Amino acid sequence: MNAATMTDAGLDLSGWMRQPLAEVEQALSRWVGAGAPVQLGEAMRYAVLDGGKRLRPLLVLAACEAVGGLREAAVRAACAVELIHAYSLVHDDMPCMDNDVLRRGKPTVHVQFGEAGALLAGDALQALAFELIAPADDEQAQIPAAMQARLCSLLARAAGARGMAGGQAIDLASVGLQLSEDQLRQMHRLKTGALLEGSVLMGAACGPADETARTALAAYGAALGLAFQVVDDILDVVADSATLGKTAGKDAANDKPTYVALMGLDGARAYADRLAGEAHAALARCGLADTRALAALADQVIRRSH
Amino acid sequence: MNAATMTDAGLDLSGWMRQPLAEVEQALSRWVGAGAPVQLGEAMRYAVLDGGKRLRPLLVLAACEAVGGLREAAVRAACAVELIHAYSLVHDDMPCMDNDVLRRGKPTVHVQFGEAGALLAGDALQALAFELIAPADDEQAQIPAAMQARLCSLLARAAGARGMAGGQAIDLASVGLQLSEDQLRQMHRLKTGALLEGSVLMGAACGPADETARTALAAYGAALGLAFQVVDDILDVVADSATLGKTAGKDAANDKPTYVALMGLDGARAYADRLAGEAHAALARCGLADTRALAALADQVIRRSH
Repeated sequence: MNAATMTDAGLDLSGWMRQPLAEVEQALSRWVGAGAPVQLGEAMRYAVLDGGKRLRPLLVLAACEAVGGLREAAVRAACAVELIHAYSLVHDDMPCMDNDVLRRGKPTVHVQFGEAGALLAGDALQALAFELIAPADDEQAQIPAAMQARLCSLLARAAGARGMAGGQAIDLASVGLQLSEDQLRQMHRLKTGALLEGSVLMGAACGPADETARTALAAYGAALGLAFQVVDDILDVVADSATLGKTAGKDAANDKPTYVALMGLDGARAYADRLAGEAHAALARCGLADTRALAALADQVIRRSH
Repeated sequence: MNAATMTDAGLDLSGWMRQPLAEVEQALSRWVGAGAPVQLGEAMRYAVLDGGKRLRPLLVLAACEAVGGLREAAVRAACAVELIHAYSLVHDDMPCMDNDVLRRGKPTVHVQFGEAGALLAGDALQALAFELIAPADDEQAQIPAAMQARLCSLLARAAGARGMAGGQAIDLASVGLQLSEDQLRQMHRLKTGALLEGSVLMGAACGPADETARTALAAYGAALGLAFQVVDDILDVVADSATLGKTAGKDAANDKPTYVALMGLDGARAYADRLAGEAHAALARCGLADTRALAALADQVIRRSH
């Protein structure tokens, strides 16, 4: 065990992550683009494979472990949330949105496959997310129907107009506007928070969890989701493009409201720490036996440098 | 009863349609854009409400009636397939795809709400489709979990890379190419056929249907889906834009492969008739008591003038 990877939560996070990451990568590689027309399949795989920190899948699997849930369901749910995240990046990068040409150090999907190709790849990735969660009979998956239905409900809610897509719409409408902290928080709660919180809830939905546990895990997910965005805003200011793997300083250049603009750099950092504290407090009251992976992931979100 | 609306199938289709159409419009009006940020909700409603023949919802409800299925589930499924259809039109009309400015006689969504607005509205409509099928606990819907899971599976498959999105990708890649009849059929089987066939299967999934019935209904849906596209190609040549409510002659102008280009006008018409025959033959062997609405819908598809 490497002391450098040992977290406050008392878990070797790098060690813990190895198995879930391998499972998710293997599953994504098997499923993404399978049976698709050639060009579409290539664009889908380009958008998803070989990149990304897989934070959302890790949250699903950590939450599933915390509730002692069904691994097969969690791996499907983990891939599904990652596909929703990946499709949102593909569409977000398009010229009519952020017009970004670099993502994870590679040309963005529309640069590589054309705008129409990127549009369709994103659309197909969203559909695939729901396909994974509700496998057809011939896939012989052993996931109870009630679990499939609940996962579909949680994912659709997190991805849609009252979740991620809604947050993007608010973001779009707020360029150049002076938002209050409340408005900014509401925007991010939807734009990035909904899917991060959804990841935790989906993991919890893969096993038995009482109302107390679900409520606490939702609070954990909400705090973590907001912290993630605050750190993102900080990194957009302090990191360079090479470290980020995407264009730095975009927010200020695009006149987007950010936590750093609102609170200053030190204020944003203090806020991120406070949110981390909230996440840990939520885990402390969830009543589940082993939440070390969830705790360590929260710490990692705050400490990440890219 | 109006003799003009009496079909070969022995059903007053206009009379039959009245109730399902009212239910679907009411449900769509209640659900689309609810809880969404203002601009996003407006774009979603603009894309879906007050327009469209609702063929797919009618197929869902007719198939549900044929199997004596659960109406509440079928209305949700009917709205869901319409949302998938609507989102595909929104994205299809965008400048990077067909660049169309007119749809159902109105400016297209990106003309009205901007490209980014159209992109997000389409994305949110797809998510909403799955949200409707798997209602959250607080909606107090009475749909068995196994039915929700099966509907999610069917819809995702029909919408994704092995269905509608896949067909659009083939369409995109085939502009300016000479396709064989087999290739053209495969493209349309995915692009429009998958969702039409999926509508029938989803309706059937709302009730008990044995393997014989499901297989026959799938064959009905496949024949109807293909016939729909053949008729679409015919109308693109013979109808004017005012009648169509969209720009006529686009296929030839865009150098897209069509059945008319491949078979000539008379050949395409004969093919549409043959497919109608196949649809009726499939209904004759499905073993279900009342398939008159499905039969009448097949006739309507062949006879429609816009």
